Amino acid sequence: MGADVRLKLELQQPTASYKVRGALNAVLRMAEGQSAESGALVTASAGNHGQALAWAVRGTGTPLTIYVPADAPKTKLQAILGSGATLVTCESYDAAERRAKEHARTRGAVYVSPYNHPDVIAGAGTVGLEILEDWPDVDIVLVPIGGGGLISGIALAVRGASTSAEVVGVEVAASNPFMQGLEAGRIVTIAVQPTLADGLAGNLDPDTVTFEIVRQHVARIVLVDEPQLRAAIVALVAREQLVVEGAGAVGVAALLARQLDVGEKNVAVVISGGNIDSSQLSALGCQ
Amino acid sequence: MGADVRLKLELQQPTASYKVRGALNAVLRMAEGQSAESGALVTASAGNHGQALAWAVRGTGTPLTIYVPADAPKTKLQAILGSGATLVTCESYDAAERRAKEHARTRGAVYVSPYNHPDVIAGAGTVGLEILEDWPDVDIVLVPIGGGGLISGIALAVRGASTSAEVVGVEVAASNPFMQGLEAGRIVTIAVQPTLADGLAGNLDPDTVTFEIVRQHVARIVLVDEPQLRAAIVALVAREQLVVEGAGAVGVAALLARQLDVGEKNVAVVISGGNIDSSQLSALGCQ
Repeated sequence: MGADVRLKLELQQPTASYKVRGALNAVLRMAEGQSAESGALVTASAGNHGQALAWAVRGTGTPLTIYVPADAPKTKLQAILGSGATLVTCESYDAAERRAKEHARTRGAVYVSPYNHPDVIAGAGTVGLEILEDWPDVDIVLVPIGGGGLISGIALAVRGASTSAEVVGVEVAASNPFMQGLEAGRIVTIAVQPTLADGLAGNLDPDTVTFEIVRQHVARIVLVDEPQLRAAIVALVAREQLVVEGAGAVGVAALLARQLDVGEKNVAVVISGGNIDSSQLSALGCQ
Repeated sequence: MGADVRLKLELQQPTASYKVRGALNAVLRMAEGQSAESGALVTASAGNHGQALAWAVRGTGTPLTIYVPADAPKTKLQAILGSGATLVTCESYDAAERRAKEHARTRGAVYVSPYNHPDVIAGAGTVGLEILEDWPDVDIVLVPIGGGGLISGIALAVRGASTSAEVVGVEVAASNPFMQGLEAGRIVTIAVQPTLADGLAGNLDPDTVTFEIVRQHVARIVLVDEPQLRAAIVALVAREQLVVEGAGAVGVAALLARQLDVGEKNVAVVISGGNIDSSQLSALGCQ
C-alpha cells in the first residue's frame, strides 16, 4: 500500500498478550505498599488480563478470583483454570465486570480493572515506549481499543515523548463504545454485537479514566467490521505465519480495508494478542 | 524440560523461509561473474527454494524454470506462479531434481541446487552466524535436514567460530537419507514415505557435497515420526502463535518427544519455514 508497516508482536509475550505488562506493574506496585500486600485480588476479564494477572501473582499465594464471559475462547479459560485462580463465568463481559466490582466491595478484595487502573495503563504504556525506541521515525501507531487501557498507556507515552507521531485507535463495529461515546461527549451504553474480537467486546466502566485520556490524546478512531477482521486474521496466518486473535488483528484489518489513509507513512501496528481457539482458526481457514 | 530453548524464526523472512539467504547469495555471486550474468537459471525445489530464487531474481529479467513435486503445498506453488517463473510439476522431488539437472545439461541453463551448491550453503550458514552472535552461550543448535544445505552452512559457521556448541540434525523417519547413508558410510537410495514435512522429503543428489560436510561436522542426527511432528505443529500454533510448516517444526518435535537429551543446556532451534496450506493446518487443528 506504499506505507512502511511494522508489527509490534505482543502475541509473543508470556500468556500471549500485552496484558502481562499492566498486570505485573499493578502487582509489583501493590507489593511495594503495605495494606494490600497479602490481600486477595479480583478482576473481570475477557480472558487475557485474567491470564496475565494469574501469571503475575504466580508463586505468591495471592488469592485471585477472575470473572469472565462464559463464551470466552477455551484457550483463555483453560489457561486461567490451569493457573489455580478461581474462575467465575458470567453471561457477558459487562456482567463479569459488574460482579467483579461487587465482589471487591462485599468481600474485601482489591479490584484490578483490566483497563481502568493507573498501574495497568502505565504498564501497557511500555508498548509505546518500545515502539518509539525501536522506530523514532514512526508516524502512526495503530492500536486496538476495548476498554481503552492499552491505547491510553500508549497515547500518554507518545504524548510525553518528543515526537509528532499520532496514535489512532481501532474499534470493531460490533462494539464501539469510544466512537459512540466521543460523538455523544460522554460515556454511553451501547448494544454489544457478536464479534471475532472477543477481547474488545463490552461496555465501558462508567468510572473509567480511559475515556478522557482517549478523548484528549488519541488522534482518531476507525472501525472495522467482521468480514474485514476475518480477512485480516486469515492474511496474518497465510502471509505472516502469525496466529493472531480477533482483537489483535483489528489494526491490520483497518489497513487492509483502507479504513484510514496512511499514504507513505511509517505505521506501527500493535498486534495485542494471539489467544484464539484452534477450532475458530480452523473454521476461518476452511472457508 | 529444564533446558533454555530459543527459536530462530526463519519463517519471518521474505518468502517465509531461510531459503532467501542462499538464493540471494547465489544470484549475487553469479552477477559478479561474467559468463552467467544474463543466463537462464533452473532449479528443483520442494517449493521454498523455488520461491526464494524467484524472489532473488525479481526485476532482473533472468529466465527461471523451477521443477517441483506436484503435491507441494498450494501456497508454495501459487507463490512461484505469481512470481512469473516457469513452473514444471513432477511426480516427486526426486523426479524434479533429475529433470532440472537434465534441463540444465540440454538447454544451457545454470542449475542452482537447493542444497548442493557452495553459495547456497554459505548463505544458509548466516543463520548459524546470527545464532552465535545473538547467543554466544548456545550449547546445541537443532537444525532440520532435507538435502543438508541448511545444516551444512550452519555446521561450517559453528565449526569456524570459537565455540563448543554442537550442531544436531533432525530428519523425519519418513525420509532419512542422512541417517541411513551415514550408517552405510555412503549416499544410499532410500524409499521416501509420505510426510507432513514436504520440504524435507527426497533422496540426495548423488554428487552432493552436503553428505561429507554433515558426516564431519554434525554431532548427531535424530529422527521424528509423523505423530510427533503433528503434535509439534499444533503446539507451535497453540502455544507460540506461530504458523510453522512441517519441515520447520522437526526441531521442536524432537524436543517435545524427547528424542535427544538436552539436560539444562542452551538450545537454539531453527524454525526453517512457515509455508503450510491453511487446509492442512485446519485439518491438524480440527482433530
